[in-house]
Amino acid sequence: MSSVEQRLQALEDKRALQERITAYLVAVDDLSSVDAVLASFTEDAVFDMTGIDYGRFEGEKELRQFFEGVFAGMSHHAHYATNFHIDGLQGDRASCRTHVIGMGRSKEGDDVLFYLQYHLEYRRTGDGWKITRFSGKPLLPLS
Amino acid sequence: MSSVEQRLQALEDKRALQERITAYLVAVDDLSSVDAVLASFTEDAVFDMTGIDYGRFEGEKELRQFFEGVFAGMSHHAHYATNFHIDGLQGDRASCRTHVIGMGRSKEGDDVLFYLQYHLEYRRTGDGWKITRFSGKPLLPLS
Amino acid sequence: MSSVEQRLQALEDKRALQERITAYLVAVDDLSSVDAVLASFTEDAVFDMTGIDYGRFEGEKELRQFFEGVFAGMSHHAHYATNFHIDGLQGDRASCRTHVIGMGRSKEGDDVLFYLQYHLEYRRTGDGWKITRFSGKPLLPLS
Repeated sequence: MSSVEQRLQALEDKRALQERITAYLVAVDDLSSVDAVLASFTEDAVFDMTGIDYGRFEGEKELRQFFEGVFAGMSHHAHYATNFHIDGLQGDRASCRTHVIGMGRSKEGDDVLFYLQYHLEYRRTGDGWKITRFSGKPLLPLS
Repeated sequence: MSSVEQRLQALEDKRALQERITAYLVAVDDLSSVDAVLASFTEDAVFDMTGIDYGRFEGEKELRQFFEGVFAGMSHHAHYATNFHIDGLQGDRASCRTHVIGMGRSKEGDDVLFYLQYHLEYRRTGDGWKITRFSGKPLLPLS
Repeated sequence: MSSVEQRLQALEDKRALQERITAYLVAVDDLSSVDAVLASFTEDAVFDMTGIDYGRFEGEKELRQFFEGVFAGMSHHAHYATNFHIDGLQGDRASCRTHVIGMGRSKEGDDVLFYLQYHLEYRRTGDGWKITRFSGKPLLPLS
């Protein structure tokens, strides 16, 4: 049987892992602060959306450029994450998945809609759990 | 480091805040008991849906009238809340946000569809956390 | 006031109940392992989707046959569960509900889309909480 300390830590970690991806999506949909988006990633994070033809970006500088472009181009965002699932949690590493419905409208009036599953790798840092690898797999064919 | 008591309380509070909005939505979608809906609000609650042109209601009497009208007019409801995010939790007050896909069909056969973020202010009462301020912000343009 | 042990157990149980339905949906949408789907059910489980015209299945053998048929026929699945709500949790039994948007595409190219609420009965087993009764109620009229 685990100790009270271990059980509290496990509950707090599991909650923190989900809160991290939620905070990321809240910031992405606010479309107001790229810094708030980047706060969810480690400095060496890989953001790989080749699964939906959005490219692959590595490290804070590339991620910043990517999100600055997204924020400049989009007028609206709405990402709905459900089914948060922890595949592994060991010490300072975790692997999780979450279903996402991703919607957006560009400033030019084009709409996008994706039905995805994000695959997330996390690392515990001095500033809490952060995402080190982020990729997206379509659950339904891209339209 | 927080005490075991403090850590348990924080976990319970965070869960209770989300359970409150979930209970509200379950009751709203049941379309069977306005009392069950009102149980999620303080008596002095403000329900402000001017962001989606549904008006602003203050206090139990006005909220009851509003929801009685909604329940009389709608044949189906389906509200899907995700991305529950706690912006602040201090003592007996909390501020939270959650993304919502709101769908409904009126008895006359009209369909509504909203992509929203609810902004929620909570107060801890003798009967648990209740909502004191409820407003909705569209994430995508109203269609 | 409950003891630390009781409060930890309640938090762990509530989390485990939601994790069970999430694990089920992740497996259903992976479309790769019927065993992974069945791991969420007791051997005597009833899976009743007569509410959306998918029939009623009882016991592991019937559930296996049903899901083998589903997996053989579908090329894509995407189920998004939100509003996880615990109606009752007493000892080794629990009753829960969750809203679900269920989407799929068959290998023949037909699309399905459901707006549902699952009603779930759970039993605590030596292998954690498992689902003993699963039914689906449409929230919006079937199209």
